[in-house]
Amino acid sequence: MSYFPDVPKIKYEGPSSKNPLAFKHYNPDEVVEGKTMREHMRFGAAYWHCMRGGLSDPFGGPTAQMPWDDMSDCIDNAKKRADVFFEFLEKIDIDYYCFHDRDIAPELNDLAKSTAALEAVVDHLGGLQKSSGRKLLWGTACLFSHPRYSQGAGTSPDARVFAYGAAQIKAAMDATHKLGGEGYTFWGGREGYATLLNTDMKRELDHLAALLHMAVEYKKAIGYTGQFYIEPKPREPSTHQYDSDSAACLNFLREYGLMDHFKLNIETNHATLAGHTMQHELAVAIGSNALGSIDANQGDTLLGWDTDQFPSDLYGTTQVMLKVLEMGGFTTGGLNFDAKRRRESHEPIDLFHAHIGGMDAFARGLKSAAAIRADGRIDEFVKNRYSTWDSGIGAVIEGGTDLKTLSDWALKNGEPVVASGRQELLENILNEFI
Amino acid sequence: MSYFPDVPKIKYEGPSSKNPLAFKHYNPDEVVEGKTMREHMRFGAAYWHCMRGGLSDPFGGPTAQMPWDDMSDCIDNAKKRADVFFEFLEKIDIDYYCFHDRDIAPELNDLAKSTAALEAVVDHLGGLQKSSGRKLLWGTACLFSHPRYSQGAGTSPDARVFAYGAAQIKAAMDATHKLGGEGYTFWGGREGYATLLNTDMKRELDHLAALLHMAVEYKKAIGYTGQFYIEPKPREPSTHQYDSDSAACLNFLREYGLMDHFKLNIETNHATLAGHTMQHELAVAIGSNALGSIDANQGDTLLGWDTDQFPSDLYGTTQVMLKVLEMGGFTTGGLNFDAKRRRESHEPIDLFHAHIGGMDAFARGLKSAAAIRADGRIDEFVKNRYSTWDSGIGAVIEGGTDLKTLSDWALKNGEPVVASGRQELLENILNEFI
Amino acid sequence: MSYFPDVPKIKYEGPSSKNPLAFKHYNPDEVVEGKTMREHMRFGAAYWHCMRGGLSDPFGGPTAQMPWDDMSDCIDNAKKRADVFFEFLEKIDIDYYCFHDRDIAPELNDLAKSTAALEAVVDHLGGLQKSSGRKLLWGTACLFSHPRYSQGAGTSPDARVFAYGAAQIKAAMDATHKLGGEGYTFWGGREGYATLLNTDMKRELDHLAALLHMAVEYKKAIGYTGQFYIEPKPREPSTHQYDSDSAACLNFLREYGLMDHFKLNIETNHATLAGHTMQHELAVAIGSNALGSIDANQGDTLLGWDTDQFPSDLYGTTQVMLKVLEMGGFTTGGLNFDAKRRRESHEPIDLFHAHIGGMDAFARGLKSAAAIRADGRIDEFVKNRYSTWDSGIGAVIEGGTDLKTLSDWALKNGEPVVASGRQELLENILNEFI
Amino acid sequence: MSYFPDVPKIKYEGPSSKNPLAFKHYNPDEVVEGKTMREHMRFGAAYWHCMRGGLSDPFGGPTAQMPWDDMSDCIDNAKKRADVFFEFLEKIDIDYYCFHDRDIAPELNDLAKSTAALEAVVDHLGGLQKSSGRKLLWGTACLFSHPRYSQGAGTSPDARVFAYGAAQIKAAMDATHKLGGEGYTFWGGREGYATLLNTDMKRELDHLAALLHMAVEYKKAIGYTGQFYIEPKPREPSTHQYDSDSAACLNFLREYGLMDHFKLNIETNHATLAGHTMQHELAVAIGSNALGSIDANQGDTLLGWDTDQFPSDLYGTTQVMLKVLEMGGFTTGGLNFDAKRRRESHEPIDLFHAHIGGMDAFARGLKSAAAIRADGRIDEFVKNRYSTWDSGIGAVIEGGTDLKTLSDWALKNGEPVVASGRQELLENILNEFI
Repeated sequence: MSYFPDVPKIKYEGPSSKNPLAFKHYNPDEVVEGKTMREHMRFGAAYWHCMRGGLSDPFGGPTAQMPWDDMSDCIDNAKKRADVFFEFLEKIDIDYYCFHDRDIAPELNDLAKSTAALEAVVDHLGGLQKSSGRKLLWGTACLFSHPRYSQGAGTSPDARVFAYGAAQIKAAMDATHKLGGEGYTFWGGREGYATLLNTDMKRELDHLAALLHMAVEYKKAIGYTGQFYIEPKPREPSTHQYDSDSAACLNFLREYGLMDHFKLNIETNHATLAGHTMQHELAVAIGSNALGSIDANQGDTLLGWDTDQFPSDLYGTTQVMLKVLEMGGFTTGGLNFDAKRRRESHEPIDLFHAHIGGMDAFARGLKSAAAIRADGRIDEFVKNRYSTWDSGIGAVIEGGTDLKTLSDWALKNGEPVVASGRQELLENILNEFI
Repeated sequence: MSYFPDVPKIKYEGPSSKNPLAFKHYNPDEVVEGKTMREHMRFGAAYWHCMRGGLSDPFGGPTAQMPWDDMSDCIDNAKKRADVFFEFLEKIDIDYYCFHDRDIAPELNDLAKSTAALEAVVDHLGGLQKSSGRKLLWGTACLFSHPRYSQGAGTSPDARVFAYGAAQIKAAMDATHKLGGEGYTFWGGREGYATLLNTDMKRELDHLAALLHMAVEYKKAIGYTGQFYIEPKPREPSTHQYDSDSAACLNFLREYGLMDHFKLNIETNHATLAGHTMQHELAVAIGSNALGSIDANQGDTLLGWDTDQFPSDLYGTTQVMLKVLEMGGFTTGGLNFDAKRRRESHEPIDLFHAHIGGMDAFARGLKSAAAIRADGRIDEFVKNRYSTWDSGIGAVIEGGTDLKTLSDWALKNGEPVVASGRQELLENILNEFI
Repeated sequence: MSYFPDVPKIKYEGPSSKNPLAFKHYNPDEVVEGKTMREHMRFGAAYWHCMRGGLSDPFGGPTAQMPWDDMSDCIDNAKKRADVFFEFLEKIDIDYYCFHDRDIAPELNDLAKSTAALEAVVDHLGGLQKSSGRKLLWGTACLFSHPRYSQGAGTSPDARVFAYGAAQIKAAMDATHKLGGEGYTFWGGREGYATLLNTDMKRELDHLAALLHMAVEYKKAIGYTGQFYIEPKPREPSTHQYDSDSAACLNFLREYGLMDHFKLNIETNHATLAGHTMQHELAVAIGSNALGSIDANQGDTLLGWDTDQFPSDLYGTTQVMLKVLEMGGFTTGGLNFDAKRRRESHEPIDLFHAHIGGMDAFARGLKSAAAIRADGRIDEFVKNRYSTWDSGIGAVIEGGTDLKTLSDWALKNGEPVVASGRQELLENILNEFI
Repeated sequence: MSYFPDVPKIKYEGPSSKNPLAFKHYNPDEVVEGKTMREHMRFGAAYWHCMRGGLSDPFGGPTAQMPWDDMSDCIDNAKKRADVFFEFLEKIDIDYYCFHDRDIAPELNDLAKSTAALEAVVDHLGGLQKSSGRKLLWGTACLFSHPRYSQGAGTSPDARVFAYGAAQIKAAMDATHKLGGEGYTFWGGREGYATLLNTDMKRELDHLAALLHMAVEYKKAIGYTGQFYIEPKPREPSTHQYDSDSAACLNFLREYGLMDHFKLNIETNHATLAGHTMQHELAVAIGSNALGSIDANQGDTLLGWDTDQFPSDLYGTTQVMLKVLEMGGFTTGGLNFDAKRRRESHEPIDLFHAHIGGMDAFARGLKSAAAIRADGRIDEFVKNRYSTWDSGIGAVIEGGTDLKTLSDWALKNGEPVVASGRQELLENILNEFI
């Protein structure tokens, strides 16, 4: 049976199509810079938003129509949701998906039962993966929704909560391993504090690092070879999250000797909430060889929380794809749509409109990025801008020197005149490709 | 002669005084937790704001009345300003000061002449220090005002600018050393970018690290033993500053092997602009044993730039002093008033009102912090909150364990029930001390 | 029976008390500026936060322990909650309360049934009011939680939804009238838009005005004499609320001829989200004789949403009470705690800590405000600051003149020299009273 | 002689041109919706940014190269700047300009002399207008830069300052009238407050209204028929500006009976600083028939001040032009580039790059907007979305009814089911035109 009987498999029809249920730019087999679009993008869909997101907000209940879901916490309902999701993946032509343990399977009143339920649903998902050819981009454990985690999981003031979280991580890693997940993500949803008045930040961070080291060990123990990610996010849901941005994450990883084992999963809306552009966060990660995967969405910079909107801004998608091409493309990671429809877009068909829009926006971003690189004017400008470093005193400095030498040089060489940064010209060139 | 003939030496008169030109709380010789207030505070005045700040803003020219200043760039005028400043320090009873090279001495058309001017003024300042007993908290080089630095100094795309900046740092370090400065600060005023479109972030950061390593070497070479600081700041004046917050600074220091040589000089208004409370930034630094000194001011969280207001919020000063007491007090650092009067407070007497307010606010903060510590209820609450970590499964985790062990434990031990975080109660207790 | 058996009736014990379940500053019978504190404050408790707020957030479910609540939607459960609430009001010694129709009674599957349920609970509340002496500060209809209102109520694109909302308002006005409510509030929870792409702003505002005019007529029809309020709020839950701040509300009321019928109910956290201080919003309302009531809480200016924290900042409470005293006190309005405990403060006792803190903070605010007024230095300064308007050219201008006359005057009278605004001195004086 | 000898007259070369000194989209004579682009756009250049903006910022001095300017305050230098500016206008092919009195002529030590200087330069500008065919979009008086206005002009606490400002307005209106200016703008640069502690907001606003009424009278007296504008802006340079956004301006105009005499001059960066999109601010103004003119620029929503960047975002320009077409185009107003190059873009040629970029961005915006309107899908969607208002209960409501009638209707008609808002689909359609 079909849960979306009126929706055809979404196909590429080209820019002039007026069909809202067709791709206008995402042409999976089209080759760009030597790879197909499908290979570049590695699109993923988020199980939580697609199947579990009721579109409630702090001022109102769920609106999303999910006729397939009887809202029960039983395993059969969970399996049915999985069936719906895989039909969605096939119709929207997305190859990967991501999940939290408690999205795909119910949290029951008992850890053993919850774990068993997870295993049962994982088996079902395994079957669906096999029959559909869809793959798991990454899995993770939800350590933020349940009241037990209200004050943290890895950073809980209560060691029993930490242990419970560790158990959940173990099971979620087992599930991810079993499903061939290409990565496993740690998002510290409650790893932060509500108030420093009751918080021992250092002790909490020591515990978090210990948890991650245990996960590294367990990964080895079970032979799991996927990539670990941590995901920067500021402000929400705690008053201050520890992993607030790329720099905070890298600082933590360096301090605790974890740099070799983790890369970052960076999200656009988290970047802007932290006061950075997405390009900034990507550049910071790439500079430390630590960009792993991307949560593709966008925020509303006039609002102060994680609106998780579908990516539609072509400037954003172009600049993300420029960075992805610059680093040579994804290896284990991809573009996971961590995005939800607006609360008013409550019909199932809106799921399709939303993902089509995001996929087309990234397809245009990829083409624009490739065209900018082929054009070469911007790269050439940047290269020239740093040309004084390639010889003369610049080469001396890069080779290693001292203040006294440089002072002597400066005293002899007079006032340097720096050239225009030409930001407006570069923005004009960028606009040629939007 | 006196430049503030109508202003008496400011003295402590107690909380009931209505004299606006008296301290109501700052009693320099009063002992708190075993040290005098003077020893705790180590107040510093900022030469730039006091003597060079005309109170202009982006929409209007200077308003500050400075009858002693003929606005010329000559050394005599610079020396006269220094005389005024030291009279101010004595009357306001502040022991330390901080400067940029280009505040205290003019930038002339030629590096050699500027350096000579600096040396001449430094000699004059040395004399004033000796006669007044005032001391230098830290010195620094201004690598952000001159157009040559518009695109960066240590991160300039132009190697010649880097060399010029290196020369200026050398001279400013020499000056600081000669004046017995207890520290030397690196504030990367233009170390950031206007747009990523024209920026090679990694190459720029490599250069910045090289510059700091050269400074470390030069420090050794001249036998200077003061503390180096870097100062976090987001957003201004570049579109994105590299040293945007404590975590970004620590990440940079760790990446480039500089952690042993630098501490942070943290400013309240910079913290809030970065989206953090000042306590957060202090806690992050203290957690890495990297809190060096404090730029005491406050911002306006409804505005989006560095308003550099004088600290008057007693919650702020109390929480800063709690952190300072917690780390055992300042060693080389202090509380430097990096704060300016509002543009409308343009009369010289406003300088006194502003500093008196800041000093009294910190005195109340110190007393409140000490009282909170003596009271012990908050500390006790925090200690108890983490008590599950001191024995049982918590002690097992802190001693080192693995996911499997914890999973087994959790499966056996049922649902943990976390205790209330009691934020409102703790806020009520805090209010008892404000 | 008691639902809070371990909690005594909260009483005033004075500032030196260490009893967390006592008032340290709120002394209901103490007289300040000719009225008791109780008369000044007119404290209200919010039924929604106290009885219905589960403390969930967008990332996690409810944590609040409510052992009296069986979570059913039946009338008996609703009545039981009311009993608990009135025990709370009596123990915390709060005289007033506020409600939404759907807080106090269940929304059932049918409008007629929901209305009948509301009437049944209103009768029960009436009995509780009578037996306890507690009173209704204001009532309101919840036109924002149910999915039908997801795109607006008075501004819905669907006229049927508008009619449904009108029916709900009628019933909520009837309920408020029956319970002797001193006011009735319109908070336009969904009156705004998600995107301008699908919105006819002018037509929606015309509809909203029509709705309010109908309410004015209905009020006359039923002989209800309470005060109508509208409540400014920006940003949430729609992308842009129409009533975004005091000025936007007043502009709307003026445009549609509603100024005679409405005052504003102003909330601190809404003010700061809109980029204003609470004092600003109060001053704007008072300037148009339109300040009606206050939702007492505070936000976190480093976060971007309505955190609805309990008011604890003494600067805030002092400045609110200064404005309240300045306008001569509340008439129909009061200080309604539209505030919720943090999600981690999930125990019933935290309700008491939170309200005690808020009440004490406002009591200190009242005393500080009265002391500032008695001291007179700030008022005197302001009076003097405008003294040029009281005679000479100032009096000419206030009396009515023209540009030519002023130009002639200015050409004759030379450069005016404005006196210092003395912000820092005034902040120092304010601090004397905190 | 030419001041830009290497710059040709900028001409349209079409989208495929790689010539940075050519328009790729702005084709002045191309007809769109029945008018030429030139007629639609009515582009203006800002004298202050082009000729007087040194590109200094709070942390550094001017960088802009202006070889024609000897930096003196004499009239000859002012005239020379005007010559340069008109060469610029001709080469960039912009028809209009805007000025402040103190941009075009020096402020001398005496009001009479400053006024005489203004008159002299106005004569010179009149000649340049005549010879070049360029026109004045609007003039204004600078009542914010000079220290006398540090505490306000129309809202100064000092009546003498008010009178001085009135004189300046008179002279600036005379100048604008003489030059045939199509409008005159009031931007209340210092009309706000630094702190409410020293401010009588109501008295200040009464004064401001009196000033505007005097201007209305003077306009009649001299027979000036241009349009008056006020310009919303929040946050800068005072702590809180009175004219903070469109709603605040309209509220003020309504309160003081000024709605018939003023329209709004709305700026994108001011909108976003106030927490609104530009489209919102335009829609608010259009809804009250009060949109007059536009200051075309854009801000950086991750920074908190008025960055005044050149408009390059095509979403922004498209949505602005949609609103302009919707209201039937400009009458007296236009698109004035109130925008400055980045501080690093300090060469004269950058002025051209910047304006070319802005003009092309708006040309694309105009074409996209016209195409969206021609396509009709979005308009059709909006029309249908409100269709329940066109008959049945909706028509009853719009015709006038009462709560009782609506309640009866709702009780009979059951639960309304609202249709999806389709935001994502509409965003996808919008993207087809970017």
